[in-house]
Amino acid sequence: MSSSQRPVVTVLVGNRPVEGLDRVAALADIRETDAAGLASALPGSDVLYLWDFFSGALPGAWHAADSLKWIHVAAAGVDKLLFPELVASDVEVTNACGVFDRTMAEYVLAALLFSAKDLGVTRDHQAQRLWGRRTVRNIGGAGVLVVGTGSIGRSTARLLRAAGAEVEGVGRVARAGDPDFGTVHASGDLAAVVGRFDYIVLVAPLTPSTDGMVSARVLEAMKPSSVLINVGRGRLVDEPALVRELMRGGIAGAVLDTFSTEPLPADSPLWGMPQVLISPHMASDAGSWLADLAAQFERNFLAWQAGQPLTGVVDKALGYVPFALGEPT
Amino acid sequence: MSSSQRPVVTVLVGNRPVEGLDRVAALADIRETDAAGLASALPGSDVLYLWDFFSGALPGAWHAADSLKWIHVAAAGVDKLLFPELVASDVEVTNACGVFDRTMAEYVLAALLFSAKDLGVTRDHQAQRLWGRRTVRNIGGAGVLVVGTGSIGRSTARLLRAAGAEVEGVGRVARAGDPDFGTVHASGDLAAVVGRFDYIVLVAPLTPSTDGMVSARVLEAMKPSSVLINVGRGRLVDEPALVRELMRGGIAGAVLDTFSTEPLPADSPLWGMPQVLISPHMASDAGSWLADLAAQFERNFLAWQAGQPLTGVVDKALGYVPFALGEPT
Repeated sequence: MSSSQRPVVTVLVGNRPVEGLDRVAALADIRETDAAGLASALPGSDVLYLWDFFSGALPGAWHAADSLKWIHVAAAGVDKLLFPELVASDVEVTNACGVFDRTMAEYVLAALLFSAKDLGVTRDHQAQRLWGRRTVRNIGGAGVLVVGTGSIGRSTARLLRAAGAEVEGVGRVARAGDPDFGTVHASGDLAAVVGRFDYIVLVAPLTPSTDGMVSARVLEAMKPSSVLINVGRGRLVDEPALVRELMRGGIAGAVLDTFSTEPLPADSPLWGMPQVLISPHMASDAGSWLADLAAQFERNFLAWQAGQPLTGVVDKALGYVPFALGEPT
Repeated sequence: MSSSQRPVVTVLVGNRPVEGLDRVAALADIRETDAAGLASALPGSDVLYLWDFFSGALPGAWHAADSLKWIHVAAAGVDKLLFPELVASDVEVTNACGVFDRTMAEYVLAALLFSAKDLGVTRDHQAQRLWGRRTVRNIGGAGVLVVGTGSIGRSTARLLRAAGAEVEGVGRVARAGDPDFGTVHASGDLAAVVGRFDYIVLVAPLTPSTDGMVSARVLEAMKPSSVLINVGRGRLVDEPALVRELMRGGIAGAVLDTFSTEPLPADSPLWGMPQVLISPHMASDAGSWLADLAAQFERNFLAWQAGQPLTGVVDKALGYVPFALGEPT
């Protein structure tokens, strides 16, 4: 694109009306397309705005991306996007870093309290008009291990601590004195430390390093009274092993917002487990999230136009936005 | 009781094994009784320990309380206990002041998040194996009005603020600059202020002044998007009016742990409302609550034996422990 030309922004739309293009349209030519039309829309495009962030359409259309400089994904996880050709290219990738921090932290706190107060069973009793008074648990002083030390993990740790839980973290590298986690354990030590915690919270990105990190061995090392909360990605967990541990009482329960296959297949045994809450990948979808995503793209586009640094730049080799490079949270 | 005699402690037991008598038994004669035997057990008793705190047996046995000096109730609410003859008597009444502060605050936070994240509908969808992704709400910045400024209300306000909500209070007397609530509104102004809040939380004791305070007029003044959370007493609310407001969408939902009649009758329309969570009077029942109640009675008994002041002394005219007289929380 020369400075005399208007840039071309291709927008991959999805089920929801696209937002965040009003100011962009004054400065750029906009091409809206669905997944089927992506290869036709990409030639000459400078920017790709993935509003339909669940689409896996880009690898099949990559041959047509002859001018692409920047892809913005209106989502936190980029695991479905980072195919080898994109990783090897010079195309910059940014994501919704920061937008979901508060919302995801709240969902995790909601999940902790839902489990501690046994509200799933209370709801099941309600359906039977059954008055089933019983003793439940407090989260004050409970040990929570947050797996993932990016901006969402940090926001989660701060909120859980504010609510009275004792929080530690798991990241790539072990360290002490972290401002949000205190102790951060190395992900390779997960099986060794997991047995000390009451709640294991997964907010890590899905990368080759984290794929299947909550293995059968890790699940077996959890306390029988402990609960797994997964708002990261389904494939962080060995799902068949999780089903086995839940069935045999090796762990007490789970709140799952992500699954290996989504929507969760109707024949999954997880649906029927009273000690499990099945949440349909909606931990991030609260309040003004769509408007917030749109405003973030608009800000980044204006920065890109002005030749200024973008925010939320994904390290394509790591597969996420390293915390030091992320937005202040 | 003269100093040469061992005091007599009558314990009204209930469904649960009584706790908290080991050290007391070394210093006093213990008489355990159920409700039917209370009138036979009371003559000569110095202390009555109401472990079965849901029993309404005392008024009918009051004629036999010929030596009673002190009643300890292992519960926070004393509304069922304060019959006129007891109020007029010199018998001191203490309750479980402080024991439930953290637990009740957590239940309220759990209720807020359950509502904001629409987890009841998520659970209902799970029963149908339905993947129903949708946008929910955040509690960060939400306005919460906590009705009741005793030790439970204060603990609740602090926890909700720590979790990011904007909290104000309702008490007998309006005031500004309260350390936990900031602004406290007078309960007489409830209808005038209630429309500004997203969540109305009831933690007030049931007294002649609070009976029915959440009237049809108050409910009609609530925002259509707002949610009522009642962990206080069912009779704080005009329950038929609440049912009407829920049915017509005048308010968005409710989390109810207490009801006019408990257990909630099977024919109550509240059971079948998807926007309502029916919780079986268990907000206070978490963790080591029974042991904590027992330890509190034991401490108070040792103080009583030593002629020291008791903690958790109920103002029988007001119907609760005034905050200034309560335990530090």
